[in-house]
This record gives sequence, structure tokens and C-alpha cells, in this order.
Amino acid sequence: MGKIITIGREFGSGGREFGRRLAEKLGYAYYDSEIINEICKGTKYSKEYIEQVSEKDPVPLFPIRYGNSFAIGPDPSVTMAMDVYKVQTSVLKEMASKSNCVIIGRAADYILKDLKPFSIFVYACIESRIERCQKREKENENFTFSQMKRKIKKIDKGRAKYYSFVSGKKWGDKNNYDLMINTSYTDIKRLVDMVTNLFE
Amino acid sequence: MGKIITIGREFGSGGREFGRRLAEKLGYAYYDSEIINEICKGTKYSKEYIEQVSEKDPVPLFPIRYGNSFAIGPDPSVTMAMDVYKVQTSVLKEMASKSNCVIIGRAADYILKDLKPFSIFVYACIESRIERCQKREKENENFTFSQMKRKIKKIDKGRAKYYSFVSGKKWGDKNNYDLMINTSYTDIKRLVDMVTNLFE
Repeated sequence: MGKIITIGREFGSGGREFGRRLAEKLGYAYYDSEIINEICKGTKYSKEYIEQVSEKDPVPLFPIRYGNSFAIGPDPSVTMAMDVYKVQTSVLKEMASKSNCVIIGRAADYILKDLKPFSIFVYACIESRIERCQKREKENENFTFSQMKRKIKKIDKGRAKYYSFVSGKKWGDKNNYDLMINTSYTDIKRLVDMVTNLFE
Repeated sequence: MGKIITIGREFGSGGREFGRRLAEKLGYAYYDSEIINEICKGTKYSKEYIEQVSEKDPVPLFPIRYGNSFAIGPDPSVTMAMDVYKVQTSVLKEMASKSNCVIIGRAADYILKDLKPFSIFVYACIESRIERCQKREKENENFTFSQMKRKIKKIDKGRAKYYSFVSGKKWGDKNNYDLMINTSYTDIKRLVDMVTNLFE
């Protein structure tokens, strides 16, 4: 088994950029939206639906880890979400088995815990996240500061809900990670160089 | 002004070792118990008293930052604690002004915030902290697992109380730090090498 680095990240913190640069620098495989594409191949559901339940909005009424095994509930939405979860788990395990890799989001640190990944959480203060998001805005978008703040909070809420749903733990709680990196005041490239040092 | 690295740390996490090694590696000054000695020179109080109020058990009934200025309360214990706090603040500022340095604990990240220190928080899971503490036990000490756990929790509670008393913020909350390092599963020397990279 190669080295696995998982990256949880607050929306707008630059966690994805951090992960991509880290993978490039280390010569590791990089998995982000690739995960969704692979799940698509393994299930009958649409990409949009998979994106929704694979990190944004799981089925909150029924815990996946019910009784330490997969429980098939009577509600079809639960069954569907669990189908995606099962395929996602095997996709992540397959990706991790192929080569050294960096995996973004999707509670991969928990799902792959038996493979002892090095888990990183990337975060930043809300002001710096709003600024980063505003810089990345598409031409037809024009979010105000408070609109952007609301958007960020909403996306983070979904990620927190998903993480807790899958792992039973609190998203962004330091005890779930080996390293927590604040991108508010330090250049991401410098932080990537720093972490690279740990794996060389 | 040189570079300032402040290190908050959970008891038993190896934060002090991390800080000492980092200072050695970078050739920075290292301040830990030196802070207490310097405060001793600047006040009339005993070393034991200063140790008590400078990080373990501040006066909790009266906030130091009352009305954004030092308020002298009628209670002599408050006045004494504030004397120490004032001397500690000037000692920390003087230390920081002399050369690049690593400062352990004492809410230095908050006290020196205008000097923009790089603030690190070192933590670990309770099992690894108990193990580390048991290895460091003196010959006449023989704490059981639960006794050691109680001791660790008590010391951390004091640190959290002190930090919150001085800064009004939560000790160990990721938003107060640039980097949070978990020493449970990664060798401290490797983590020191990693962080060194950021300052070279």
C-alpha cells in the first residue's frame, strides 16, 4: 500500500489548490472530481445526485453505520444514498491501492482509516475565504460579502453533516486530523513545500 | 523585528520538545521557564506564585482586559495577578524584540499578536499523552492510567482557563493558530523538520 494523504477543507480555504499542488510536487495521484466520475460508472444514479449525496447532503434520518453494518432501510432515498456510499467506499479503496495519492474531501480520512492515511484539514478565517471566493467568481456572479458568507456557511454545513453522518465524528475537530493548516496568513505554495518535506 | 514562533500545547503532547528542537534547528532563542525567571526579576512575588498565575490559575473573577484597559480591582489577588500579567507582557515583548525566537505557552500568541507571530498548537490523543507522561515519570511517581489522565485534564483545564482569561478566546481552537500539529502518530523530529522548512 502506498502513501495516502487525505484533505478535508473548509470551503474557500484553498484546500483543493493545496491538495493539487501537493500531489503535483510529490508526484502522487490526485483525486477530487475523479471520485464522482468513478462512482457514476459503478451506480445507476446521475452525476448530480451523486454529487449531492456524496458530500453535500446525505440522508440525515438514518445513520449509515447503524449497528456497525450496512442497514437497508425501507426508505428508497436511504437505500440510494447507501448504494452511493458503498460504491464510493470501494472507489476510494481502489484509488488508494493503486499508488501514492492525495484525496480531497468525501470523509476519505474516515473511510480509509484502516489504511492509516495522513489526514490534513485546511481552513482559514471567514474574511480570507470570502476574498478567495470573490476572486474566483464567474463573470455573471456578483455575490456581496454577506451573500458569499451565507454561501460558504451553507456549503460547510453540508460537508460537516456528511462527515458526521459517515464517521459519527465532528468535521474539522483537530482530533480527527494529523495536521491542521490555516491558509489565512501564509502562502499556500509555502505550506505545500512544508508538507512535501514530510513525505520526501 | 525578528521572526516569532509561539507554541501552545496540550500537556503531554510533546509540545515543549517540539519547540525546543525547532528552536535548536532554526538557531532561534528558546523561551519557556526563562519567562518565569524574568518575571521574578521584575516583580516582588515568589517563583511559585508567578508559576501559578502566569499559566495555571489566573484570577477568574475579573477579566484582565476589562474595558480594553488594565482595571485595578479592590481585591489584592486581582492586583497581584495583574502585576504579573503586566510584567509578563513586557518580558515577552522584550524577548521577541531581541532576536528570532520560539516561545512556549503563556498565551504568547495573543499577547504578541501585534507582532504577528506564527502560532502553532501541538496536541495529541489522550492515550499517546498518557504514555508520554508515564515514560517521563520520576522514580517515586507511579501514576495509574486514570490518575495520569486526571492530572493531564487538570493541567489542560488550567491552561485553557488562563488562555481564555487573557485573550477572551478558546484555547486550542483552530482559528487562533496558523498550524495545529498532532504528535500521536508522527515522530516529533519529522514534524520539526517539516516546520523548519517554512522558516528557512
